[in-house]
Amino acid sequence: MATIVVALGGNALGNNVVEQLESAKVAAKSIADLVAGGHKVVIAHGNGPQVGVIKKLMDTGDFVMPMPECTAMSQGYIGYHLEQCLRNEFAARGIKKPVTGVLTQVLVDKTDPAFKNPTKPIGNYYSEEDAKKQMAETGKTYAEDAGRGWRLVVPSPKPVDICNKETIKLLVDNDTVTLACGGGGSPVVNEGGNLCGIDAVIDKDFAAAKLAELISADSLFILTAVDRVKINFGKPDEKSLASINLAQAEQYIGEGHFAPGSMLPKVQAAMMFVASGQGKKAIIGSLEQAALAIKGESGTEIVAG
Amino acid sequence: MATIVVALGGNALGNNVVEQLESAKVAAKSIADLVAGGHKVVIAHGNGPQVGVIKKLMDTGDFVMPMPECTAMSQGYIGYHLEQCLRNEFAARGIKKPVTGVLTQVLVDKTDPAFKNPTKPIGNYYSEEDAKKQMAETGKTYAEDAGRGWRLVVPSPKPVDICNKETIKLLVDNDTVTLACGGGGSPVVNEGGNLCGIDAVIDKDFAAAKLAELISADSLFILTAVDRVKINFGKPDEKSLASINLAQAEQYIGEGHFAPGSMLPKVQAAMMFVASGQGKKAIIGSLEQAALAIKGESGTEIVAG
Repeated sequence: MATIVVALGGNALGNNVVEQLESAKVAAKSIADLVAGGHKVVIAHGNGPQVGVIKKLMDTGDFVMPMPECTAMSQGYIGYHLEQCLRNEFAARGIKKPVTGVLTQVLVDKTDPAFKNPTKPIGNYYSEEDAKKQMAETGKTYAEDAGRGWRLVVPSPKPVDICNKETIKLLVDNDTVTLACGGGGSPVVNEGGNLCGIDAVIDKDFAAAKLAELISADSLFILTAVDRVKINFGKPDEKSLASINLAQAEQYIGEGHFAPGSMLPKVQAAMMFVASGQGKKAIIGSLEQAALAIKGESGTEIVAG
Repeated sequence: MATIVVALGGNALGNNVVEQLESAKVAAKSIADLVAGGHKVVIAHGNGPQVGVIKKLMDTGDFVMPMPECTAMSQGYIGYHLEQCLRNEFAARGIKKPVTGVLTQVLVDKTDPAFKNPTKPIGNYYSEEDAKKQMAETGKTYAEDAGRGWRLVVPSPKPVDICNKETIKLLVDNDTVTLACGGGGSPVVNEGGNLCGIDAVIDKDFAAAKLAELISADSLFILTAVDRVKINFGKPDEKSLASINLAQAEQYIGEGHFAPGSMLPKVQAAMMFVASGQGKKAIIGSLEQAALAIKGESGTEIVAG
C-alpha cells in the first residue's frame, strides 16, 4: 500500500459550476480506482480557470480581493465538489473511508525571482488584441498560453514549506482521503515571524511535489490531458515516453522538448520529488488511465537512475 | 482539559476583506486564550455577511452559484484569515499546535419545514422600501433583521449529520486546533444514497451544537456581541443571566425573551447540545470575555438541571 499524492489539473474541472460538478464526478471515478487499489491518496487540484473567475468577480470597485484569498475561495469551491463526488463514488463502491478537504497555506520566499517575472496564466482566454489592450490599460501582464489564447499571468513562486503539513500527514496516516494544496495553496510569506498573504499563484504540481516530499509519500502522480509525456511533440518523430530517469529528463528539458507553463513545470515538479529521497517515483499520465498508470501500464514514469 | 466547540459569529468578522483580517486577529487572541488554558478547541464560524457578498458577486447572468458552493467559498475565504491569524498568534505566544481549516458538508433533511419558510438573513442590509421592491421584482424573501435593517432570507434547515465528523474528531483528538462547519457547513441532502447540495444556509450555532455532540465535546461556547444573555432585553427590568438550566431556558423562550434570528437560535442551539448527553455545558458570551467565560466569570452558562 503506497501513499500517493495526485495532482489534478484545474483545466480538467470545467469552466463553470455545472461543468465542474460533472467533471468532479469523472475525476472521482479515477481517484476511487486508486483508493480501491489499496493506496492512500491525497489530491492536490489546480484552480487556473476557477481562480481567474473568482478574482474577476470578487474584485469590486471598493475592494480588491487578493490572490491568496481568491485561492482559498477556490479551495472551498472546488473542494466542495470533489469531496462530495468522492463520497458518492465511495458509497456506490462500498469504500468506507473518510474524505475531507483541508484549507492549505503554502510558504514562499519573497525574494523568489518569480515575483519579478509573472508567468502563471489564470482566468479567461483572450485574443492577442484584447490582451494587449488590457495590458496597456491596467499595467498587468498577459501572455500567450500554449497555443490556446492569451491569459493574465501572475507570479508563480516555488513552494518552500506547507503550513498544514502535520495535519495532512495525520489525516493520510489515518487513511483519510485528503484534498490539500488546492490551487497550489494560498501563498504566504514570513514577515519577521508573521505569516501574511502575497499576490501570487503557486503551481499546483510543485505544491503537490513539495507536499509529497514533506509527508514522505511514495509516489507523485501528475494528471494531465495526455496519456504520456512526449518528445518532439507535434513533429513527425513524436515519441511517447514510458519511463525516464532524472538525467534523461534533464537532457530533454535542455533540448526544449517541453512547453513552459504546460509540460515543462510538470516534468520539473516530478523531478523535484524524485530527487527528494530514495525510491521515490513520479508518474505523469492522464486522468482516464490513472488506474493503469499506477500499475505501470500507462503514463510516463520518472525515476532517479 | 476540555474539548470546546466555539461558535464565532460572522458579523464579528467585518464586512470586507480588510476588516475581516483585522477582526480575525482580534478573534485569534481570544481563541488563543482558550488554547493557552489547555483546552482542545474547534472553531465553527458564521458567514452571514460574507456569503451574502459572495452570492451576489458570483451569481452572473450566465450562471447562478448555488448556496452550498457559496458557503464552501466562504469557508475558504474566512478560514484562510482565521487560520493565518491563529498561527501568528500561537507563534507569538510560543504555542506549538497545528491549526487547520476543514471544508465541511452538513446533511440536512429535505423535508425540514424550513424549506417552506425561509428565515436566515444573509448579505447586505436594505431599507424596508428597497427590500420590498426587490421582493416584488425577484420573488425572493426579505425580512427585517433585529432592528438593523432588511435582508435577504433563505431556508435554514437543522443539521442532521456532519459528513466530516470522523476527520474533525481525529484532528481534535490529536490536538489540532480545527476550523470546521464554517458558515454552518455546506448543506447537502441524501437523494437515494447520493449526496447533493441544496439551496439553504445552516445556522452556525446549530451546526456547532451538532458537531459538539458528534465529537463528544465537553462544552459548546457560543460567542456573540453581548457578555451575557438577557431577559427583558431593553426594558427597565432587563437582567443578565449568569446560569440557567434547560427548564428555565424553556420558560424564557415561552415568555418571548429572545429575538428570533438573533438570541433565540443561540439559546436553542445551546439547549440542544446540553440535552445531548450527561454533564454537557453550553456558554453564551462575548468574544472579548471568552477566557473569563470559560472559567465561569462571564457569559451565561446553560446546564441540564
